[in-house]
Amino acid sequence: MGASDDKMSAEDRLIADFFKPLATHPGALGLTDDAAFLTPAPGTDVVLTADAIIGGVHFFPDDDARDVARKALRVNLSDLAAKGAAPLGFLVSLALPQDIGADWLKRFALGLREDAEAYACPLFGGDTVRTPGPVMVAVTMFGSVPSGKMVRRAGARPGHRIFVTGTIGDAALGLVLRKGATWTLDAARRDHLLSRYLTPQPRNALAEAVRAYASTAMDVSDGLAGDLTKLCRMSGVAATIDVASVPLSDAVRAAVAIDPAMRETALTGGDDFEVLLTVPEPGAAAFRAAANAAQVPVADIGVIEAGEGAHFMEAGRELAFKRLSFSHF
Amino acid sequence: MGASDDKMSAEDRLIADFFKPLATHPGALGLTDDAAFLTPAPGTDVVLTADAIIGGVHFFPDDDARDVARKALRVNLSDLAAKGAAPLGFLVSLALPQDIGADWLKRFALGLREDAEAYACPLFGGDTVRTPGPVMVAVTMFGSVPSGKMVRRAGARPGHRIFVTGTIGDAALGLVLRKGATWTLDAARRDHLLSRYLTPQPRNALAEAVRAYASTAMDVSDGLAGDLTKLCRMSGVAATIDVASVPLSDAVRAAVAIDPAMRETALTGGDDFEVLLTVPEPGAAAFRAAANAAQVPVADIGVIEAGEGAHFMEAGRELAFKRLSFSHF
Repeated sequence: MGASDDKMSAEDRLIADFFKPLATHPGALGLTDDAAFLTPAPGTDVVLTADAIIGGVHFFPDDDARDVARKALRVNLSDLAAKGAAPLGFLVSLALPQDIGADWLKRFALGLREDAEAYACPLFGGDTVRTPGPVMVAVTMFGSVPSGKMVRRAGARPGHRIFVTGTIGDAALGLVLRKGATWTLDAARRDHLLSRYLTPQPRNALAEAVRAYASTAMDVSDGLAGDLTKLCRMSGVAATIDVASVPLSDAVRAAVAIDPAMRETALTGGDDFEVLLTVPEPGAAAFRAAANAAQVPVADIGVIEAGEGAHFMEAGRELAFKRLSFSHF
Repeated sequence: MGASDDKMSAEDRLIADFFKPLATHPGALGLTDDAAFLTPAPGTDVVLTADAIIGGVHFFPDDDARDVARKALRVNLSDLAAKGAAPLGFLVSLALPQDIGADWLKRFALGLREDAEAYACPLFGGDTVRTPGPVMVAVTMFGSVPSGKMVRRAGARPGHRIFVTGTIGDAALGLVLRKGATWTLDAARRDHLLSRYLTPQPRNALAEAVRAYASTAMDVSDGLAGDLTKLCRMSGVAATIDVASVPLSDAVRAAVAIDPAMRETALTGGDDFEVLLTVPEPGAAAFRAAANAAQVPVADIGVIEAGEGAHFMEAGRELAFKRLSFSHF
C-alpha cells in the first residue's frame, strides 16, 4: 500500500473541493488538520455562540442550499452583533443525507463563502457526517470583544430606554405566507416578507455602538415579546412598551390591515434577528447618532421600570397575547 | 402579559433542569445569555475542534444516553490531546426527536457532567433543536496551547520515530462484535472490545508530552493505516511500520487467532482514539519517559522515511490492505 493507490475518502474530497477555499485564516491550516487555532488579540475575550438549523424545522427542504448556508451563518452572526462582538470565524458540523449531491454542496459552499467574506468571518474547520435524517447545519461562531465587555442580558435598570433595530415581525409573517396564508399582498410586499424570513440581515454594523452604549442586549430570534420577557427576567426588571412605537414595515402594516391577528404574530413571532437593547438615558442620543452613522435604523420603543415582565401598552391598555414567544422545540 | 403568566419554553426548561449545572465556568453565564465568553491566558492560542455524532451512524440508537454523551465529548477531547492542547470547555448543539423523553436527557446530562468534571472541560453553551431525524450531538471544543505550539500533521521528517499510544483495533473489533461477529471470545475479552468501541479513552494525560516532543501528531479515529497515510501526505514523507510492533490487546490477538482477517480490520478500522505521533530521534527516550510519567502506554512502531505513503512491513514483505481506512461518510 502506497500513497499512489491510496484513495481519499468521499468526505475528504467534499471538504477539499468545496470548503477549503473558505478557510482563508492561517489558523484554519487549510482544513488539513484535526483542529484549528486562533491567537486572540491581547486584552480581548473570545465570545462563543452556537446555533443549529435543521431541514423541515428551521428551513424548508426545498430551500436553495445557498440560502440555507447564509441562514446558518447569520443566526450566529446576529448573536455576535447583539453581544457587541466582532466576528473572528466559525466551525460548521454538517449532517448530510447520503443522496445530497454535489450541486447542493456547491450551492451551500457558495452561500458560506459569500457570507464569510461579507462578514469577515472565515471558516476554521468542522465536521461532515452522514445522516439518515434531514440536513443539519450546526455552526459555532466566535467573536472578539475587549476583555470584560461582552454585552449581556442582565443589567437593565429602571429608566433605561429600550431600543430595537430595523422592523419587527417581517420574518414571522414571511413564514405565514410561506406556509400558505389566508390573506395575500401585492408581489413587492410579499417578496419583502418572504425574503426577510429566508435570509436574516444581522446587525453586525451596530456591534460597536451596542458595546459602547447598551446596558443589555440580545438578538430577537424567538419574538419580541418573549425575548424582551427573558431580558427582563435576567435583569430583574419590567419593561413597558409603547406598541405604537414598535417599528413595523409597510408590508407588515398592510398584512395587519387585512388580518388584525397578524399584529400579534408580528410582536410574538420569531426569526427577526434584529437587536433588542437597553440604553441608560444619558447615552440614548449618542447611541442614536452612532446607529445613524452605522446606517442601522433604530427605534425607541419603551422604558425599563421596576417590577416584572414585558408590558405592551396601547392607548393606556395592556395587550394580552395568546402565546408569548416562538419555540421551535 | 406579565412575568407571572409567562411560561418558560420547553427548551428553556430542559436547559435549566439538566444543563445549567454543567456550566460551571463564569464565562458560561449559567447558560442564561445568547453567548458565552472566555478570556484566554496571555501568550496562548485557542485550539478549536468540532466533531458530531449521529444515532444509527456513530452510535447505536439503543446506547445508554450517558455513553452517547461521553463519546460525543471524548472524540473531541482526543483531538485536543493529539494537538497538545489542554481542554478549556465545549459547546454542544443537540438535535433531539420530539419523543426523546426526560430520562434520556437526564442520562445524557449525567454523561456530559461526568466527563466535563473528569477532563476539566466545562459546558459553555449551545443549542437544542427538534429534529424529525435521529439524535445528533455536535460538540465544538476549545483548548489551550502556548502560542504557536499546536502540534500539527505536517512536519514529520525522515528519521523521526513513529509512536502510537495504547492498543490498536480494539474499537473496530468491538464494532464487529456489536454488529454480530462470526467468531466469539470469552466474556472478559468480548467486554473489553465492546467497551473500547462504546467509550473512547482519549489520551489527554499525554498532551504535554506530545507538545514537548512530537514533530507531528493526530488522533487515530479513521484507522491507523489511513490516518498514518494522511499524516505522511501532509508531511510529504513515507512511513515504514513494523507490523509486529503495533500494539494489540490480548483480546485483539485472540480474535486474530480465530479469524486472521481481523488483523486487517484492527489496522485499518476506526474509533481507536489513540494518539499517533512522530518524534525526532534525539527526543525519543525523553518522550518515552514523559509518557511513562503520564501513565500512558506508548509503542515505537516504525520510522519516517523519504517517499510517499504508509508501508506496513512484516518479515520483509509489505501488507496489502483491501481498504485503507474507515469512513462513516
